[in-house]
Amino acid sequence: MCKTQIVMLTDFGLSDVYVGVMKGVIAQIHRQINIIDLTHQIPPQNLAAARFCLMNAYPYFPDGTIYLTVVDPGVGSTRRAIAVEFASGFLVGPDNGILSGVLSQTPAISAVELTNSCYWRVEQSSATFHGRDIFAPVAAHLANGVSLYDLGNEIDVASLVELNLPNPILTDTSVQGCIQYIDGFGNLVTNISGDYVSGKRWVVVAQGREIPGCETYSDQPIGNLIALVGSHGCVEIVVNCGNARSQLQLDYLDPVQVLF
Amino acid sequence: MCKTQIVMLTDFGLSDVYVGVMKGVIAQIHRQINIIDLTHQIPPQNLAAARFCLMNAYPYFPDGTIYLTVVDPGVGSTRRAIAVEFASGFLVGPDNGILSGVLSQTPAISAVELTNSCYWRVEQSSATFHGRDIFAPVAAHLANGVSLYDLGNEIDVASLVELNLPNPILTDTSVQGCIQYIDGFGNLVTNISGDYVSGKRWVVVAQGREIPGCETYSDQPIGNLIALVGSHGCVEIVVNCGNARSQLQLDYLDPVQVLF
Amino acid sequence: MCKTQIVMLTDFGLSDVYVGVMKGVIAQIHRQINIIDLTHQIPPQNLAAARFCLMNAYPYFPDGTIYLTVVDPGVGSTRRAIAVEFASGFLVGPDNGILSGVLSQTPAISAVELTNSCYWRVEQSSATFHGRDIFAPVAAHLANGVSLYDLGNEIDVASLVELNLPNPILTDTSVQGCIQYIDGFGNLVTNISGDYVSGKRWVVVAQGREIPGCETYSDQPIGNLIALVGSHGCVEIVVNCGNARSQLQLDYLDPVQVLF
Repeated sequence: MCKTQIVMLTDFGLSDVYVGVMKGVIAQIHRQINIIDLTHQIPPQNLAAARFCLMNAYPYFPDGTIYLTVVDPGVGSTRRAIAVEFASGFLVGPDNGILSGVLSQTPAISAVELTNSCYWRVEQSSATFHGRDIFAPVAAHLANGVSLYDLGNEIDVASLVELNLPNPILTDTSVQGCIQYIDGFGNLVTNISGDYVSGKRWVVVAQGREIPGCETYSDQPIGNLIALVGSHGCVEIVVNCGNARSQLQLDYLDPVQVLF
Repeated sequence: MCKTQIVMLTDFGLSDVYVGVMKGVIAQIHRQINIIDLTHQIPPQNLAAARFCLMNAYPYFPDGTIYLTVVDPGVGSTRRAIAVEFASGFLVGPDNGILSGVLSQTPAISAVELTNSCYWRVEQSSATFHGRDIFAPVAAHLANGVSLYDLGNEIDVASLVELNLPNPILTDTSVQGCIQYIDGFGNLVTNISGDYVSGKRWVVVAQGREIPGCETYSDQPIGNLIALVGSHGCVEIVVNCGNARSQLQLDYLDPVQVLF
Repeated sequence: MCKTQIVMLTDFGLSDVYVGVMKGVIAQIHRQINIIDLTHQIPPQNLAAARFCLMNAYPYFPDGTIYLTVVDPGVGSTRRAIAVEFASGFLVGPDNGILSGVLSQTPAISAVELTNSCYWRVEQSSATFHGRDIFAPVAAHLANGVSLYDLGNEIDVASLVELNLPNPILTDTSVQGCIQYIDGFGNLVTNISGDYVSGKRWVVVAQGREIPGCETYSDQPIGNLIALVGSHGCVEIVVNCGNARSQLQLDYLDPVQVLF
């Protein structure tokens, strides 16, 4: 598969030079490769948010994209560093579940543990910055045409770490779910698929409040809580011109119910 | 006109994947096009700020630039989605006044409503993310050589929505204006052109305080309020090494007076 | 030396169009040059932070990189605007010490004052935005093949402004240093080289607290203070899954001691 570009997702933020330095390391190896920032502001070490963002974003990128994903609370511990080939491209990052959302939708074809230090930036990798010393150079070498199998020992794709999230619970009259992502506007994205509410009359119940299921933001007055199927394809709670997170005081994994 | 690059301006922020996903959609259509971020941190749904930023920035980009501008409080309502050709390039975004600053300086040559869903990402566009599903793919197709007229029905350029801002009021001894933009340093940009104060002695009066008109930041001690003609060509109130917004407690559209 | 790309470091932030406009000015002069953002969120006018970031990042970029660095508290005053050639590339920015960290490691080969306004964007440069009007166009012209010596009058490299930072004080049993950088996670980077603690047992004393010297984040429970040699090669104080800055209430230049 042709490697077309590198897409970066990290929790490094933009105030430091960490992300820029990773791009420098890539440019030292492959000067022409196009790099797109997916986001660098995943809440620090929030694997659920990283997994959700990557899973929802990858369908919008060209085939052959290399996803360089570094949210890595276990850096320096024994978690594996891996690269994975799947139908739409490649995933490079820690084996901690960050990739498991994508792989739940598009299974892994093959995977290696990044054991071949020839493709690292230094023989003795820094204990704290694998993004710079392992993951960025490996992604650049992949883009440069190095085979996945040259990067290290092949591992069983069934052994890749998954991140276990609660599944929605369905009854005839309701779906019980939770908040799985909160965006920068304070919109609360549940883990309840929009398919469940399609063509029905429905409300959301959260924090003891009943929130009407609508089609668009403008179906309710400014400042009012609305539930709708957002651009991620999941039920979201939003406020027209406002912040649902602060209005409802909900956080990651808090329960939410859809009633028909 | 040769389409040279895409410049993005949104209020989506950088903490979510919205901007990255729009770039992915563009890359799926036109892999080589250069993308420059103008800013993604317009205050949410603040059309006046978006209009001001775009109007002030476009002269610094090459001809043939496609400006992809998504600040869109009316998404999902009946506001039109449009593309406009003007002397310096193309504008793609909602018809809500965001483009009217640029067009007040460089008139529109022609405009279309984006009705041709062949150039959208999906037939049935998402109710909430026209940036991803309509504006980004249309900008990419424009960059790819699709004609403006293929994107939808031509509309009268005189029908494009304008954003009405108060005009400065002139007397022999004063100019009455307002704050039209507040930058990330807390610098307060008025709508009073620097031409009015050129070659004169002048002060600004705001919140009952008199602020001296100066040439540069360093004309006043650190921490002091200064008025000067900023890089936008308008009278600005700033603090040498400080934040004028918080020091004066002024906000968008608050009144400001220049006295000679 | 081949000019390969432009790396930008500023304190302009990302909420305004300042950085985007600089990129537009560059694109008007040299459409193909690759631009990498190192960071635009240096604390406003913090020359020590800018110097530290640039000094630590430049080894990770390809030779021939042009570093366009604008943290410029003296803009509009008499400080010189300069361009410098050194072994790894070029530096373009104000002569205020921002470049002195790089040049302490890799000496300047030659330097010019940017006096030739042919390579500025306008004859009469703005009093407040040299980034747009002088530094960005000069960097683009350099990338385009203009010789350093055409940009202005050559100056003595010994005359370049240095930023004086306190040096660590060594005894047989201790090193006395200070905080020289605080990253976006609240990690406190001292000016004490990791070489001093290599192969020894050591602790850090700061704010009256004793912090164990460790190898990796995961050597201590979540929430605990740790000292380790960070990715910059200096002793850092961090908190496993937490913020050392807020836990210790330390700021730039505050004292820190290593005891063996």
